[in-house]
Amino acid sequence: MPRQITAFSNPLVKQARGLRDKKERRREGMFLAEGLRILTEARDAGFLPVRVFFAAGQRHPLLDRLVVETEAAGGDVIETTADILQKISGKENPQVVMGLYSAFDTDLAKLDRTGADLWFVAQALRDPGNLGTMLRTGDAVGAGGLILVDECVDPFSVEAVRASMGALFTQRIAAAGWADFITWLRSGPGELVGTSLNTDQDYQVARYGKPCFIFVGNEAQGLPKDYAQACDALVKIPMFGKADSLNAAVAAAVMAYEVVNQWRR
Amino acid sequence: MPRQITAFSNPLVKQARGLRDKKERRREGMFLAEGLRILTEARDAGFLPVRVFFAAGQRHPLLDRLVVETEAAGGDVIETTADILQKISGKENPQVVMGLYSAFDTDLAKLDRTGADLWFVAQALRDPGNLGTMLRTGDAVGAGGLILVDECVDPFSVEAVRASMGALFTQRIAAAGWADFITWLRSGPGELVGTSLNTDQDYQVARYGKPCFIFVGNEAQGLPKDYAQACDALVKIPMFGKADSLNAAVAAAVMAYEVVNQWRR
Repeated sequence: MPRQITAFSNPLVKQARGLRDKKERRREGMFLAEGLRILTEARDAGFLPVRVFFAAGQRHPLLDRLVVETEAAGGDVIETTADILQKISGKENPQVVMGLYSAFDTDLAKLDRTGADLWFVAQALRDPGNLGTMLRTGDAVGAGGLILVDECVDPFSVEAVRASMGALFTQRIAAAGWADFITWLRSGPGELVGTSLNTDQDYQVARYGKPCFIFVGNEAQGLPKDYAQACDALVKIPMFGKADSLNAAVAAAVMAYEVVNQWRR
Repeated sequence: MPRQITAFSNPLVKQARGLRDKKERRREGMFLAEGLRILTEARDAGFLPVRVFFAAGQRHPLLDRLVVETEAAGGDVIETTADILQKISGKENPQVVMGLYSAFDTDLAKLDRTGADLWFVAQALRDPGNLGTMLRTGDAVGAGGLILVDECVDPFSVEAVRASMGALFTQRIAAAGWADFITWLRSGPGELVGTSLNTDQDYQVARYGKPCFIFVGNEAQGLPKDYAQACDALVKIPMFGKADSLNAAVAAAVMAYEVVNQWRR
Protein backbone atom coordinates (compact mmCIF):
# COMPACT_ATOMS: atom_id res chain seq x y z
CA MET A 1 0.00 0.00 0.00
CA PRO A 2 1.26 3.50 -0.78
CA ARG A 3 2.15 5.51 2.25
CA GLN A 4 1.17 9.14 2.54
CA ILE A 5 3.38 12.19 2.88
CA THR A 6 1.83 15.60 3.27
CA ALA A 7 4.61 17.54 5.03
CA PHE A 8 6.86 19.81 2.98
CA SER A 9 9.59 19.21 5.54
CA ASN A 10 9.65 15.46 4.98
CA PRO A 11 13.24 14.46 4.17
CA LEU A 12 12.13 12.34 1.19
CA VAL A 13 10.48 15.42 -0.33
CA LYS A 14 13.64 17.41 0.22
CA GLN A 15 15.73 14.62 -1.28
CA ALA A 16 13.53 14.38 -4.37
CA ARG A 17 13.55 18.12 -4.82
CA GLY A 18 17.32 18.13 -4.41
CA LEU A 19 17.66 15.89 -7.49
CA ARG A 20 17.03 18.93 -9.67
CA ASP A 21 20.59 19.82 -8.73
CA LYS A 22 23.51 18.07 -10.41
CA LYS A 23 25.62 17.80 -7.28
CA GLU A 24 22.76 16.17 -5.40
CA ARG A 25 22.21 13.73 -8.24
CA ARG A 26 25.87 12.75 -8.07
CA ARG A 27 25.75 12.40 -4.32
CA GLU A 28 22.55 10.36 -4.25
CA GLY A 29 23.27 8.35 -7.40
CA MET A 30 19.70 8.97 -8.49
CA PHE A 31 17.75 11.12 -10.89
CA LEU A 32 14.20 12.32 -11.31
CA ALA A 33 11.77 11.55 -14.13
CA GLU A 34 8.35 13.17 -14.37
CA GLY A 35 5.06 12.16 -15.90
CA LEU A 36 3.14 8.96 -16.47
CA ARG A 37 4.21 8.71 -20.09
CA ILE A 38 7.93 8.77 -19.30
CA LEU A 39 7.60 6.49 -16.26
CA THR A 40 5.66 4.03 -18.40
CA GLU A 41 8.34 4.14 -21.10
CA ALA A 42 10.87 3.43 -18.37
CA ARG A 43 8.82 0.52 -17.06
CA ASP A 44 8.43 -0.91 -20.56
CA ALA A 45 12.21 -0.69 -20.94
CA GLY A 46 12.66 -2.62 -17.71
CA PHE A 47 13.28 0.22 -15.29
CA LEU A 48 11.15 0.69 -12.21
CA PRO A 49 11.63 3.64 -9.87
CA VAL A 50 13.36 3.34 -6.53
CA ARG A 51 10.64 5.64 -5.27
CA VAL A 52 7.53 7.07 -6.88
CA PHE A 53 5.46 10.07 -5.78
CA PHE A 54 1.95 10.53 -7.09
CA ALA A 55 -0.90 12.95 -6.44
CA ALA A 56 -3.56 11.65 -4.06
CA GLY A 57 -6.80 10.74 -5.79
CA GLN A 58 -5.18 10.08 -9.18
CA ARG A 59 -6.37 6.88 -10.84
CA HIS A 60 -5.14 5.58 -14.16
CA PRO A 61 -4.58 1.98 -15.24
CA LEU A 62 -0.95 2.74 -16.09
CA LEU A 63 -0.43 4.45 -12.73
CA ASP A 64 -2.04 1.54 -10.90
CA ARG A 65 0.24 -0.91 -12.70
CA LEU A 66 3.27 1.23 -11.95
CA VAL A 67 2.39 1.36 -8.26
CA VAL A 68 1.86 -2.40 -8.04
CA GLU A 69 5.02 -3.27 -9.91
CA THR A 70 7.15 -0.74 -8.04
CA GLU A 71 6.00 -2.16 -4.71
CA ALA A 72 6.48 -5.73 -5.91
CA ALA A 73 10.06 -4.84 -6.84
CA GLY A 74 10.70 -3.47 -3.36
CA GLY A 75 10.31 0.17 -4.36
CA ASP A 76 8.77 2.90 -2.27
CA VAL A 77 5.37 4.33 -3.28
CA ILE A 78 4.28 7.65 -1.84
CA GLU A 79 0.91 9.30 -2.20
CA THR A 80 1.19 13.04 -1.74
CA THR A 81 -0.35 16.42 -2.51
CA ALA A 82 -0.25 18.53 -5.65
CA ASP A 83 1.59 21.20 -3.65
CA ILE A 84 4.38 18.84 -2.76
CA LEU A 85 4.68 17.62 -6.35
CA GLN A 86 4.93 21.27 -7.32
CA LYS A 87 7.68 21.75 -4.77
CA ILE A 88 9.61 18.74 -6.08
CA SER A 89 9.26 19.68 -9.74
CA GLY A 90 9.65 23.43 -9.33
CA LYS A 91 6.92 23.89 -11.92
CA GLU A 92 3.54 25.51 -11.53
CA ASN A 93 1.70 22.68 -13.20
CA PRO A 94 3.63 19.60 -12.14
CA GLN A 95 3.08 16.13 -13.52
CA VAL A 96 0.89 13.96 -11.26
CA VAL A 97 3.58 11.32 -10.92
CA MET A 98 7.35 11.45 -10.47
CA GLY A 99 9.90 8.71 -10.10
CA LEU A 100 13.35 8.51 -8.61
CA TYR A 101 15.67 6.18 -10.51
CA SER A 102 19.15 4.86 -9.90
CA ALA A 103 21.60 6.63 -12.19
CA PHE A 104 23.01 4.49 -15.00
CA ASP A 105 26.61 3.48 -15.38
CA THR A 106 28.06 5.67 -18.15
CA ASP A 107 31.40 3.88 -18.44
CA LEU A 108 32.28 3.84 -22.14
CA ALA A 109 34.29 0.63 -21.70
CA LYS A 110 31.04 -1.17 -20.93
CA LEU A 111 29.26 0.00 -24.09
CA ASP A 112 28.63 -2.81 -26.57
CA ARG A 113 28.83 -1.23 -30.00
CA THR A 114 27.51 -4.38 -31.66
CA GLY A 115 24.10 -3.60 -30.15
CA ALA A 116 23.24 -1.19 -32.96
CA ASP A 117 24.37 0.03 -36.38
CA LEU A 118 24.04 3.69 -35.50
CA TRP A 119 25.26 5.77 -32.58
CA PHE A 120 25.27 9.47 -31.73
CA VAL A 121 28.38 11.12 -30.38
CA ALA A 122 28.16 14.67 -29.03
CA GLN A 123 31.05 16.84 -27.92
CA ALA A 124 30.76 19.49 -25.20
CA LEU A 125 26.98 19.60 -25.58
CA ARG A 126 25.58 22.38 -23.42
CA ASP A 127 21.82 22.31 -23.72
CA PRO A 128 19.84 19.65 -21.82
CA GLY A 129 16.97 19.97 -24.31
CA ASN A 130 19.34 19.15 -27.16
CA LEU A 131 20.70 16.16 -25.27
CA GLY A 132 17.24 14.79 -24.49
CA THR A 133 16.07 15.43 -28.05
CA MET A 134 19.07 13.51 -29.42
CA LEU A 135 18.13 10.54 -27.22
CA ARG A 136 14.54 10.74 -28.46
CA THR A 137 15.69 10.88 -32.09
CA GLY A 138 18.15 8.07 -31.39
CA ASP A 139 15.30 5.86 -30.30
CA ALA A 140 13.26 6.82 -33.38
CA VAL A 141 16.04 5.91 -35.83
CA GLY A 142 16.94 2.70 -33.99
CA ALA A 143 20.28 4.02 -32.76
CA GLY A 144 22.02 2.35 -29.85
CA GLY A 145 22.65 5.42 -27.77
CA LEU A 146 24.55 8.60 -27.19
CA ILE A 147 28.21 8.98 -26.29
CA LEU A 148 29.06 12.25 -24.56
CA VAL A 149 32.60 13.41 -25.29
CA ASP A 150 34.34 15.90 -23.00
CA GLU A 151 32.37 17.96 -20.50
CA CYS A 152 28.69 17.88 -21.50
CA VAL A 153 25.46 18.83 -19.79
CA ASP A 154 24.22 16.16 -17.39
CA PRO A 155 22.06 13.55 -19.19
CA PHE A 156 20.22 12.96 -15.91
CA SER A 157 19.05 16.55 -15.54
CA VAL A 158 15.29 16.94 -15.31
CA GLU A 159 15.25 18.91 -18.58
CA ALA A 160 17.20 16.27 -20.47
CA VAL A 161 15.04 13.45 -19.13
CA ARG A 162 11.92 15.40 -20.09
CA ALA A 163 13.12 16.19 -23.61
CA SER A 164 14.07 12.54 -24.13
CA MET A 165 10.41 11.59 -23.60
CA GLY A 166 11.57 8.34 -22.04
CA ALA A 167 14.32 7.55 -24.53
CA LEU A 168 16.81 7.99 -21.69
CA PHE A 169 15.67 4.52 -20.67
CA THR A 170 15.85 2.90 -24.10
CA GLN A 171 19.10 4.44 -25.35
CA ARG A 172 22.51 3.65 -23.89
CA ILE A 173 24.48 6.60 -22.54
CA ALA A 174 28.22 6.75 -22.11
CA ALA A 175 30.62 9.54 -21.29
CA ALA A 176 34.35 9.91 -21.89
CA GLY A 177 37.08 12.41 -22.60
CA TRP A 178 38.20 12.73 -26.22
CA ALA A 179 41.40 10.68 -25.82
CA ASP A 180 39.55 7.80 -24.18
CA PHE A 181 36.74 7.98 -26.71
CA ILE A 182 38.94 7.85 -29.80
CA THR A 183 41.00 4.99 -28.30
CA TRP A 184 37.80 3.07 -27.57
CA LEU A 185 36.41 3.81 -31.03
CA ARG A 186 39.54 2.56 -32.83
CA SER A 187 39.60 -0.61 -30.75
CA GLY A 188 36.69 -1.98 -32.79
CA PRO A 189 34.71 -1.50 -35.99
CA GLY A 190 33.03 1.81 -36.71
CA GLU A 191 33.06 4.89 -38.88
CA LEU A 192 33.21 8.30 -37.23
CA VAL A 193 31.21 10.78 -39.32
CA GLY A 194 31.59 14.39 -38.28
CA THR A 195 29.16 17.10 -39.27
CA SER A 196 30.95 20.28 -40.22
CA LEU A 197 30.55 23.51 -42.10
CA ASN A 198 34.18 23.33 -43.21
CA THR A 199 33.85 20.68 -45.89
CA ASP A 200 32.40 20.41 -49.38
CA GLN A 201 31.32 16.81 -48.91
CA ASP A 202 27.52 16.76 -49.18
CA TYR A 203 25.92 14.55 -46.55
CA GLN A 204 23.78 12.90 -49.22
CA VAL A 205 26.74 12.02 -51.44
CA ALA A 206 28.76 10.28 -48.74
CA ARG A 207 28.06 6.59 -48.12
CA TYR A 208 27.85 5.32 -44.56
CA GLY A 209 29.23 2.04 -43.21
CA LYS A 210 28.10 0.13 -40.14
CA PRO A 211 28.38 0.83 -37.32
CA CYS A 212 28.16 4.54 -37.99
CA PHE A 213 28.97 7.07 -35.27
CA ILE A 214 27.41 10.47 -36.06
CA PHE A 215 29.53 13.13 -34.38
CA VAL A 216 28.18 16.61 -33.62
CA GLY A 217 30.07 19.37 -31.88
CA ASN A 218 29.25 21.98 -29.29
CA GLU A 219 26.28 24.22 -30.07
CA ALA A 220 28.36 27.39 -30.45
CA GLN A 221 31.77 26.12 -31.58
CA GLY A 222 31.11 22.98 -33.61
CA LEU A 223 33.77 20.26 -33.60
CA PRO A 224 37.33 21.19 -32.58
CA LYS A 225 39.65 21.08 -35.59
CA ASP A 226 41.71 18.11 -34.40
CA TYR A 227 38.58 16.14 -33.57
CA ALA A 228 37.26 16.82 -37.06
CA GLN A 229 40.57 15.65 -38.52
CA ALA A 230 40.26 12.36 -36.66
CA CYS A 231 36.91 11.61 -38.32
CA ASP A 232 36.66 8.99 -41.07
CA ALA A 233 34.41 11.36 -42.98
CA LEU A 234 33.37 14.96 -42.61
CA VAL A 235 30.07 15.88 -44.18
CA LYS A 236 28.04 19.00 -44.59
CA ILE A 237 24.29 19.43 -44.48
CA PRO A 238 23.58 22.06 -47.15
CA MET A 239 22.23 25.45 -46.08
CA PHE A 240 20.06 27.49 -48.40
CA GLY A 241 19.39 30.57 -46.31
CA LYS A 242 21.15 33.28 -44.40
CA ALA A 243 21.92 31.22 -41.30
CA ASP A 244 25.07 29.16 -41.25
CA SER A 245 24.06 26.41 -38.90
CA LEU A 246 21.33 24.18 -37.60
CA ASN A 247 20.43 23.45 -34.01
CA ALA A 248 22.69 20.59 -32.83
CA ALA A 249 19.83 18.16 -32.18
CA VAL A 250 18.28 19.03 -35.55
CA ALA A 251 21.59 18.46 -37.35
CA ALA A 252 21.98 15.09 -35.62
CA ALA A 253 18.46 14.09 -36.68
CA VAL A 254 18.85 15.19 -40.31
CA MET A 255 22.13 13.24 -40.49
CA ALA A 256 20.65 10.16 -38.83
CA TYR A 257 17.68 10.01 -41.19
CA GLU A 258 20.01 10.29 -44.19
CA VAL A 259 22.03 7.35 -42.88
CA VAL A 260 19.04 5.11 -42.16
CA ASN A 261 17.35 6.17 -45.41
CA GLN A 262 20.45 5.04 -47.34
CA TRP A 263 20.44 1.74 -45.49
CA ARG A 264 16.77 1.04 -46.12
CA ARG A 265 16.99 1.65 -49.88
CA MET B 1 26.53 59.19 -27.99
CA PRO B 2 25.15 56.42 -25.80
CA ARG B 3 23.58 57.63 -22.62
CA GLN B 4 24.19 55.88 -19.34
CA ILE B 5 21.72 54.19 -17.05
CA THR B 6 22.89 52.70 -13.78
CA ALA B 7 19.70 52.76 -11.71
CA PHE B 8 17.65 49.58 -11.39
CA SER B 9 14.60 51.75 -10.89
CA ASN B 10 14.93 53.45 -14.26
CA PRO B 11 11.62 53.05 -16.11
CA LEU B 12 13.40 51.95 -19.31
CA VAL B 13 15.01 49.09 -17.40
CA LYS B 14 11.65 48.10 -15.99
CA GLN B 15 10.09 48.31 -19.43
CA ALA B 16 12.79 46.12 -20.98
CA ARG B 17 12.54 43.60 -18.20
CA GLY B 18 8.77 43.58 -18.60
CA LEU B 19 9.15 42.35 -22.19
CA ARG B 20 9.87 38.89 -20.84
CA ASP B 21 6.14 38.81 -20.19
CA LYS B 22 3.72 38.19 -23.05
CA LYS B 23 1.12 40.70 -21.87
CA GLU B 24 3.74 43.42 -21.65
CA ARG B 25 4.99 42.58 -25.14
CA ARG B 26 1.45 42.94 -26.46
CA ARG B 27 0.94 46.21 -24.62
CA GLU B 28 4.26 47.73 -25.69
CA GLY B 29 4.26 46.26 -29.21
CA MET B 30 7.89 45.35 -28.72
CA PHE B 31 10.03 42.33 -27.99
CA LEU B 32 13.49 41.62 -26.66
CA ALA B 33 16.42 39.99 -28.45
CA GLU B 34 19.68 39.16 -26.71
CA GLY B 35 23.25 38.81 -27.85
CA LEU B 36 25.50 40.36 -30.44
CA ARG B 37 25.09 37.45 -32.82
CA ILE B 38 21.30 37.72 -32.96
CA LEU B 39 21.30 41.54 -33.06
CA THR B 40 23.77 41.40 -35.94
CA GLU B 41 21.59 38.90 -37.80
CA ALA B 42 18.70 41.30 -37.28
CA ARG B 43 20.75 44.23 -38.57
CA ASP B 44 21.83 42.23 -41.62
CA ALA B 45 18.18 41.46 -42.28
CA GLY B 46 17.35 45.17 -42.13
CA PHE B 47 16.09 45.43 -38.55
CA LEU B 48 17.62 47.87 -36.10
CA PRO B 49 16.51 48.01 -32.48
CA VAL B 50 14.27 50.74 -31.15
CA ARG B 51 16.53 50.69 -28.13
CA VAL B 52 19.74 48.84 -27.34
CA PHE B 53 21.32 48.19 -23.95
CA PHE B 54 24.96 47.18 -23.73
CA ALA B 55 27.44 46.56 -20.93
CA ALA B 56 29.76 49.48 -20.22
CA GLY B 57 33.30 48.89 -21.40
CA GLN B 58 32.34 46.39 -24.08
CA ARG B 59 34.07 46.99 -27.40
CA HIS B 60 33.53 44.93 -30.51
CA PRO B 61 33.46 46.09 -34.14
CA LEU B 62 29.97 44.62 -34.60
CA LEU B 63 28.75 46.32 -31.42
CA ASP B 64 30.27 49.63 -32.49
CA ARG B 65 28.54 49.38 -35.86
CA LEU B 66 25.24 48.46 -34.20
CA VAL B 67 25.49 51.49 -31.91
CA VAL B 68 26.30 53.88 -34.74
CA GLU B 69 23.57 52.57 -37.02
CA THR B 70 20.95 52.44 -34.27
CA GLU B 71 21.64 56.07 -33.38
CA ALA B 72 21.66 57.10 -37.04
CA ALA B 73 18.24 55.51 -37.43
CA GLY B 74 16.90 57.47 -34.47
CA GLY B 75 17.15 54.60 -32.00
CA ASP B 76 18.08 54.86 -28.37
CA VAL B 77 21.46 53.53 -27.20
CA ILE B 78 22.02 52.89 -23.52
CA GLU B 79 25.26 51.95 -21.83
CA THR B 80 24.58 50.15 -18.59
CA THR B 81 25.94 47.71 -16.02
CA ALA B 82 26.20 43.93 -16.06
CA ASP B 83 23.84 43.86 -13.09
CA ILE B 84 21.14 45.70 -14.97
CA LEU B 85 21.57 43.45 -18.00
CA GLN B 86 21.16 40.53 -15.63
CA LYS B 87 17.99 42.08 -14.26
CA ILE B 88 16.58 42.58 -17.76
CA SER B 89 17.45 39.09 -18.97
CA GLY B 90 16.67 37.23 -15.78
CA LYS B 91 19.76 35.09 -16.39
CA GLU B 92 22.88 34.80 -14.30
CA ASN B 93 25.21 35.23 -17.23
CA PRO B 94 23.40 37.69 -19.46
CA GLN B 95 24.47 38.63 -22.94
CA VAL B 96 26.41 41.91 -23.09
CA VAL B 97 23.94 43.45 -25.51
CA MET B 98 20.15 43.41 -25.76
CA GLY B 99 17.83 45.05 -28.21
CA LEU B 100 14.19 46.07 -28.10
CA TYR B 101 12.44 45.68 -31.45
CA SER B 102 9.02 46.62 -32.75
CA ALA B 103 6.86 43.52 -33.00
CA PHE B 104 6.13 42.35 -36.54
CA ASP B 105 2.75 42.31 -38.18
CA THR B 106 1.62 38.67 -38.19
CA ASP B 107 -1.46 39.16 -40.36
CA LEU B 108 -1.70 36.11 -42.62
CA ALA B 109 -3.47 38.12 -45.30
CA LYS B 110 -0.24 40.09 -45.80
CA LEU B 111 1.92 37.01 -46.32
CA ASP B 112 3.21 36.68 -49.88
CA ARG B 113 3.45 32.97 -50.54
CA THR B 114 5.30 33.53 -53.80
CA GLY B 115 8.31 34.61 -51.76
CA ALA B 116 9.45 31.02 -51.23
CA ASP B 117 8.80 27.44 -52.32
CA LEU B 118 8.67 26.06 -48.81
CA TRP B 119 6.80 27.12 -45.69
CA PHE B 120 6.34 25.69 -42.23
CA VAL B 121 2.90 25.56 -40.65
CA ALA B 122 2.58 24.64 -36.98
CA GLN B 123 -0.63 24.02 -35.09
CA ALA B 124 -1.03 24.73 -31.35
CA LEU B 125 2.72 24.69 -30.86
CA ARG B 126 3.50 24.98 -27.15
CA ASP B 127 7.25 25.09 -26.75
CA PRO B 128 9.11 28.34 -27.53
CA GLY B 129 12.32 26.40 -28.17
CA ASN B 130 10.54 24.34 -30.82
CA LEU B 131 9.14 27.48 -32.42
CA GLY B 132 12.53 29.20 -32.52
CA THR B 133 14.23 26.06 -33.78
CA MET B 134 11.68 25.79 -36.61
CA LEU B 135 12.48 29.35 -37.64
CA ARG B 136 16.20 28.56 -37.58
CA THR B 137 15.67 25.43 -39.68
CA GLY B 138 13.38 27.39 -41.98
CA ASP B 139 16.18 29.80 -42.70
CA ALA B 140 18.63 26.93 -43.29
CA VAL B 141 16.38 25.22 -45.85
CA GLY B 142 15.46 28.47 -47.58
CA ALA B 143 11.87 28.44 -46.38
CA GLY B 144 9.81 31.60 -46.42
CA GLY B 145 8.58 31.48 -42.87
CA LEU B 146 6.33 29.95 -40.28
CA ILE B 147 2.56 30.13 -40.08
CA LEU B 148 1.14 29.58 -36.61
CA VAL B 149 -2.30 28.00 -36.65
CA ASP B 150 -4.61 28.28 -33.64
CA GLU B 151 -3.27 29.30 -30.23
CA CYS B 152 0.51 28.86 -30.26
CA VAL B 153 3.32 29.97 -28.00
CA ASP B 154 4.35 33.58 -28.61
CA PRO B 155 7.00 33.80 -31.38
CA PHE B 156 8.30 36.98 -29.72
CA SER B 157 9.08 35.30 -26.39
CA VAL B 158 12.69 35.60 -25.33
CA GLU B 159 13.13 31.82 -25.54
CA ALA B 160 11.75 31.62 -29.08
CA VAL B 161 13.90 34.53 -30.25
CA ARG B 162 16.97 32.91 -28.67
CA ALA B 163 16.30 29.48 -30.19
CA SER B 164 15.78 31.10 -33.61
CA MET B 165 19.36 32.40 -33.49
CA GLY B 166 18.24 35.43 -35.45
CA ALA B 167 16.02 33.62 -37.93
CA LEU B 168 13.06 35.44 -36.41
CA PHE B 169 14.30 38.39 -38.47
CA THR B 170 14.85 36.50 -41.73
CA GLN B 171 11.72 34.32 -41.72
CA ARG B 172 8.21 35.67 -42.12
CA ILE B 173 5.79 34.89 -39.29
CA ALA B 174 2.04 34.81 -39.55
CA ALA B 175 -0.70 33.65 -37.21
CA ALA B 176 -4.29 32.63 -37.88
CA GLY B 177 -7.07 30.36 -36.71
CA TRP B 178 -7.59 27.15 -38.67
CA ALA B 179 -10.60 28.37 -40.63
CA ASP B 180 -8.83 31.53 -41.74
CA PHE B 181 -5.67 29.61 -42.54
CA ILE B 182 -7.30 26.98 -44.74
CA THR B 183 -9.30 29.66 -46.56
CA TRP B 184 -6.13 31.65 -47.20
CA LEU B 185 -4.24 28.54 -48.29
CA ARG B 186 -6.90 27.53 -50.84
CA SER B 187 -7.04 31.02 -52.26
CA GLY B 188 -3.73 30.41 -54.02
CA PRO B 189 -1.28 27.72 -55.09
CA GLY B 190 0.18 25.38 -52.52
CA GLU B 191 0.27 21.84 -51.24
CA LEU B 192 -0.45 21.21 -47.57
CA VAL B 193 1.65 18.25 -46.39
CA GLY B 194 0.80 16.98 -42.94
CA THR B 195 3.11 14.81 -40.88
CA SER B 196 1.23 12.07 -39.14
CA LEU B 197 1.67 8.71 -37.49
CA ASN B 198 -1.71 7.59 -38.87
CA THR B 199 -0.69 6.98 -42.46
CA ASP B 200 1.35 4.41 -44.36
CA GLN B 201 2.63 6.97 -46.86
CA ASP B 202 6.40 7.10 -46.42
CA TYR B 203 7.73 10.66 -46.48
CA GLN B 204 10.42 9.63 -48.94
CA VAL B 205 7.99 8.06 -51.40
CA ALA B 206 5.70 11.08 -51.64
CA ARG B 207 6.59 13.79 -54.17
CA TYR B 208 6.32 17.42 -53.20
CA GLY B 209 5.02 20.29 -55.35
CA LYS B 210 5.77 23.99 -54.98
CA PRO B 211 4.96 25.84 -52.90
CA CYS B 212 4.98 23.19 -50.20
CA PHE B 213 3.50 23.87 -46.76
CA ILE B 214 4.86 21.42 -44.18
CA PHE B 215 2.28 21.06 -41.45
CA VAL B 216 3.16 19.78 -37.97
CA GLY B 217 0.78 19.43 -35.07
CA ASN B 218 0.91 20.11 -31.37
CA GLU B 219 3.77 18.43 -29.48
CA ALA B 220 1.51 16.13 -27.48
CA GLN B 221 -1.54 15.65 -29.71
CA GLY B 222 -0.29 15.86 -33.28
CA LEU B 223 -2.65 17.21 -35.93
CA PRO B 224 -6.40 17.19 -35.20
CA LYS B 225 -8.17 14.60 -37.34
CA ASP B 226 -10.13 17.09 -39.44
CA TYR B 227 -7.02 19.18 -40.06
CA ALA B 228 -5.20 16.06 -41.22
CA GLN B 229 -8.10 15.25 -43.57
CA ALA B 230 -7.82 18.70 -45.14
CA CYS B 231 -4.18 18.08 -46.12
CA ASP B 232 -3.25 17.38 -49.74
CA ALA B 233 -0.93 14.67 -48.49
CA LEU B 234 -0.28 12.97 -45.18
CA VAL B 235 3.14 11.45 -44.78
CA LYS B 236 4.95 9.50 -42.12
CA ILE B 237 8.56 9.67 -41.09
CA PRO B 238 9.47 6.03 -40.33
CA MET B 239 10.32 5.09 -36.75
CA PHE B 240 12.65 2.21 -36.02
CA GLY B 241 12.68 2.20 -32.23
CA LYS B 242 10.39 2.04 -29.26
CA ALA B 243 9.30 5.68 -29.34
CA ASP B 244 6.39 6.63 -31.51
CA SER B 245 7.23 10.21 -32.28
CA LEU B 246 9.89 12.80 -32.90
CA ASN B 247 10.25 16.20 -31.34
CA ALA B 248 8.08 18.61 -33.38
CA ALA B 249 11.00 20.78 -34.52
CA VAL B 250 13.01 17.69 -35.42
CA ALA B 251 10.10 16.26 -37.45
CA ALA B 252 9.74 19.57 -39.29
CA ALA B 253 13.46 19.59 -40.10
CA VAL B 254 13.58 15.98 -41.29
CA MET B 255 10.55 16.69 -43.53
CA ALA B 256 12.00 19.93 -44.85
CA TYR B 257 15.33 18.36 -45.79
CA GLU B 258 13.51 15.56 -47.64
CA VAL B 259 11.57 18.14 -49.64
CA VAL B 260 14.58 20.28 -50.55
CA ASN B 261 16.69 17.18 -51.22
CA GLN B 262 14.08 15.99 -53.74
CA TRP B 263 14.04 19.39 -55.38
CA ARG B 264 17.83 19.63 -55.69
CA ARG B 265 18.18 16.21 -57.34
